[in-house]
Amino acid sequence: MKIVIAPDSFKGSVSAKEAAASIERGVKKAYAHVETVLVPVADGGEGTMENLVAATNGREIDMTVTGPLGQPVQAKFGVLGDQQTCVIEMASASGLHTIATSERNPLKATTYGTGELIKKALDLGYRHFVLALGGSATNDGGAGMLQALGLQLLDDKGNEIDYGGGELCKIAQVITDELDERIQESQFLIASDVDNPFIGENGASHVFGPQKGATPEMVATLDRNLSHWADLIENTTNIRVHERPGAGAAGGIGGAFQAFFPAEMKRGIDVVLDYTNLAEKLVGADLVITGEGQVDFQTAFGKTPMGVAEMAKKQQIPTIIVAGSVGEKIETLYPYGVIGIYSIVNGPMKLEEAMENAESMLEKLSEQICRTYFYNRSRGE
Amino acid sequence: MKIVIAPDSFKGSVSAKEAAASIERGVKKAYAHVETVLVPVADGGEGTMENLVAATNGREIDMTVTGPLGQPVQAKFGVLGDQQTCVIEMASASGLHTIATSERNPLKATTYGTGELIKKALDLGYRHFVLALGGSATNDGGAGMLQALGLQLLDDKGNEIDYGGGELCKIAQVITDELDERIQESQFLIASDVDNPFIGENGASHVFGPQKGATPEMVATLDRNLSHWADLIENTTNIRVHERPGAGAAGGIGGAFQAFFPAEMKRGIDVVLDYTNLAEKLVGADLVITGEGQVDFQTAFGKTPMGVAEMAKKQQIPTIIVAGSVGEKIETLYPYGVIGIYSIVNGPMKLEEAMENAESMLEKLSEQICRTYFYNRSRGE
Repeated sequence: MKIVIAPDSFKGSVSAKEAAASIERGVKKAYAHVETVLVPVADGGEGTMENLVAATNGREIDMTVTGPLGQPVQAKFGVLGDQQTCVIEMASASGLHTIATSERNPLKATTYGTGELIKKALDLGYRHFVLALGGSATNDGGAGMLQALGLQLLDDKGNEIDYGGGELCKIAQVITDELDERIQESQFLIASDVDNPFIGENGASHVFGPQKGATPEMVATLDRNLSHWADLIENTTNIRVHERPGAGAAGGIGGAFQAFFPAEMKRGIDVVLDYTNLAEKLVGADLVITGEGQVDFQTAFGKTPMGVAEMAKKQQIPTIIVAGSVGEKIETLYPYGVIGIYSIVNGPMKLEEAMENAESMLEKLSEQICRTYFYNRSRGE
Repeated sequence: MKIVIAPDSFKGSVSAKEAAASIERGVKKAYAHVETVLVPVADGGEGTMENLVAATNGREIDMTVTGPLGQPVQAKFGVLGDQQTCVIEMASASGLHTIATSERNPLKATTYGTGELIKKALDLGYRHFVLALGGSATNDGGAGMLQALGLQLLDDKGNEIDYGGGELCKIAQVITDELDERIQESQFLIASDVDNPFIGENGASHVFGPQKGATPEMVATLDRNLSHWADLIENTTNIRVHERPGAGAAGGIGGAFQAFFPAEMKRGIDVVLDYTNLAEKLVGADLVITGEGQVDFQTAFGKTPMGVAEMAKKQQIPTIIVAGSVGEKIETLYPYGVIGIYSIVNGPMKLEEAMENAESMLEKLSEQICRTYFYNRSRGE
């Protein structure tokens, strides 16, 4: 009997690695001789870089870059254990977390720092990139990032435009002559859970602008400016990002990758699962146990348990999910081969108590699950 | 596929019947065509009479009797659906709940009212009795009950002694001449989870006296008096209850039954399971789901989940337990064929919230358990 144990972290409580170890202890209590394979995973959002670096025994490289509002920001990117793949979280250089809430202003915020991270990695010789989007403070359609990499965005007087989504309307001319040629020698895997188009009601400005500090008036301006920028992108690259799914990710940087980079977009969880070799580790497994802090119907949209279950299902392996809290509509997970969704909480208790005891409760629950699931099988052997 | 659903009540929240119905809904959601047999059970303690009456479509008979402190008490006993078995809970007539906490006094408390209930049932023609012990306010070795049924307990002046364990030392003579002869025409099944002897360190007075209001001095007196009463019982009946297991039940009334009645003692849960025909209903089942408000290592000593599991194990049927709260040392239940112990609580919450949502959470959990347990089997079919 073989069980693959592939949980996400239980946020604020236990890391993915600790969760996997707790589950394993429970499994071994139920059946000491079961083969266990531990694959701690992250959902491709915040923390993806650190998780992949940790999972592959890679390393991190620090550097000071231009923050979203032009301020210096201490950012970093990761180099995976394969020594050839760089993982860049755009939030590290251009994230909301780098500025005070009162300073949020997508008219001004730039992705320039993200471009600097890429340039640094290119300088160091890397040509394989994983870009984790999300958590950005920006709505500049990736313009800043492209500027950092040599693209010239000139106004009608021939001057470089300034930072931010508010400036895009001024672009009169796009000059690609000095755009870093090493981009075309490289591969970019874009990890993003966002399918929104570049512009329009479901576009970057309307959907994500407000959480970055945009008023309704600013949203209208940002969307109009992105529309202008999309036209110019189309003129320049022959790629139309206006309505393209995913182009609206992270303030439109998705569209910039789609148009100017040799880039493939994937859901964050799938990128993570690729790099953790889950598919290979699943071969021959009888059961997968995954989990995260909360599981409910939102889980069906790209997070860890769902991604793990989907991958397991391709090999006809059933998945059981353990969660801190189990919400509503969990039946939407059934089509993904999920045959059990359980809360680790073993009685009425406060959140703090649940978080404190998460490891021991994970262990206990996993033991019970294995006793139940393998009962018929173990009897037959 | 057949599942027997045999939960106790979740105290303060849902009745055994409601719990069974909730579990069934979950089971049917998982596998609509599974055969379900609902057997709500009680553990043979408080509520046993009402549960058995309900389970067998019996009826209740009310009467006013002598309460533990001589006060009138409105008590009742049950007649089961077979129209021949009476179920008497001694707590109904002689229970702690009939007196204020400050009034508790085992030196004074009598089982006389329990004897009156038996006498009434004999008068009505009944000869089959189930006696549920537990919850008593008394420590009189069953003396009051026997007095109500005609046994004469006389002091050295030839006067009937007064009520309570404090009076037993005064008994000089036991006269059986007027003891109700119909007792010997009857069968008494005594439901008790207590194995304690009549007297000594593990006897009725030392172990149960304090919770009935006895101070250490009173405990010493009560034990000495019971010892005197035990000697007289032996002289009268040739039955030695002093060290006899179970004789210490309910303030020593266990010993009175053992010595003066054609009585058989059984664990409460076993009595209940007999009368609900669980063994018969289990035939051919693939799984049993049982449960109660709380499950922990105490469960191994006579309560519902344990009794159900034990009975199921005789037919090689595994049991899964669902509980409001799952405590420690649950592995002591494994030898009884328990292959899963789960809390219905599906996230951090207060006790009140858990009790309010118990039915819906029971349903959800039961669905998950069936999905997990039957996965391998359903795939093979």
